[in-house]
Amino acid sequence: MPRWEEGSADRLTRAALELFEERGFESTSVVEIADRARVTTRTFFRYFSDKAEVLFAESERIRAALVQEVLDAPDVSQPLRAVTAVLAGFDWGAPGTEVLRRRQAVIAANPGLLERDLVKQHAIATGFVDALQRRGVEEGEARLAARVGTQVFSVAYARWVEGDGEADLAELVAAAMAVLGALVPPGRAGSVASPTRTGGSS
Amino acid sequence: MPRWEEGSADRLTRAALELFEERGFESTSVVEIADRARVTTRTFFRYFSDKAEVLFAESERIRAALVQEVLDAPDVSQPLRAVTAVLAGFDWGAPGTEVLRRRQAVIAANPGLLERDLVKQHAIATGFVDALQRRGVEEGEARLAARVGTQVFSVAYARWVEGDGEADLAELVAAAMAVLGALVPPGRAGSVASPTRTGGSS
Repeated sequence: MPRWEEGSADRLTRAALELFEERGFESTSVVEIADRARVTTRTFFRYFSDKAEVLFAESERIRAALVQEVLDAPDVSQPLRAVTAVLAGFDWGAPGTEVLRRRQAVIAANPGLLERDLVKQHAIATGFVDALQRRGVEEGEARLAARVGTQVFSVAYARWVEGDGEADLAELVAAAMAVLGALVPPGRAGSVASPTRTGGSS
Repeated sequence: MPRWEEGSADRLTRAALELFEERGFESTSVVEIADRARVTTRTFFRYFSDKAEVLFAESERIRAALVQEVLDAPDVSQPLRAVTAVLAGFDWGAPGTEVLRRRQAVIAANPGLLERDLVKQHAIATGFVDALQRRGVEEGEARLAARVGTQVFSVAYARWVEGDGEADLAELVAAAMAVLGALVPPGRAGSVASPTRTGGSS
């Protein structure tokens, strides 16, 4: 891309967030976003297929990277822990946590965006189910680890962005997992013998 | 409604399912659904706002009923168990498990329907978070119990409809919960002291 266009995607993202906050998602047009970012609409469409994609442009790359990390994880004998470790270790903070917090608030305020966010989260969970099974995890365990793990992470992530990223995401995930550990019916843990889980006394 | 219209909603639901299966959701029109059910399109729109709503017509009633059951539950001191108990005890089988299985297959095959399904599931989880908090459950626990509980149920429900409802749903939910118990990192359960959970040694 030409040198003067460097940073256009960033500028477009910031402009879109501002406008969504000021006028709401529905009332903001692509033309307005491009104007505010001082680029042409043609440049806009070089980066994003529609105005919602400004908020989700990285989703597919993130999903693929996360799934690959599960495939490459050194140990998936504790699949729930493997899933949350991959999610907690991912570099979510790249766009800056202030941008992430504002993005999250805009999504929460708009049913259409919330819907798209749920679909993206579901795609990550589905990718994890597949990846865990390819790593030899039994289907029922894979489904539960993937789906519960993404929910545990999502609760911790929401707290992280609400706090402007000042807390440590991995610690918030560990705290959420500890709360879950206390919520799962006592006496059941370990009652289902599984040959894939051995020596997990830590 | 006139006597001859009794059963129209059922006939429309069955006609819609057949057509979605035969031609796909996108290629089926409201006119075709009404024709197959031998009613007018006007009758169709008396029951459903669009063709997707044929599959989700009961969602809001179900959501409200489930949330009310959490509000009325005798004991929410084990909130995750309270959530799964409410979901497992609900009368999902009313339309017949064969209809539920076909409905689930049509939803899984169509991204737009899957999206709507995710939104409805999310609304149930959000309703549970609110209901649990109103019952005095701490916010972090309420979020985890509601979101993890709906996922555990969802995994069990999928297995239930795949098996045409021959297995017992409550048993499948208990089995999924037992698997989760074995997945949650050992040694953590109970490590977060909580005054709301006492005597849970069963």
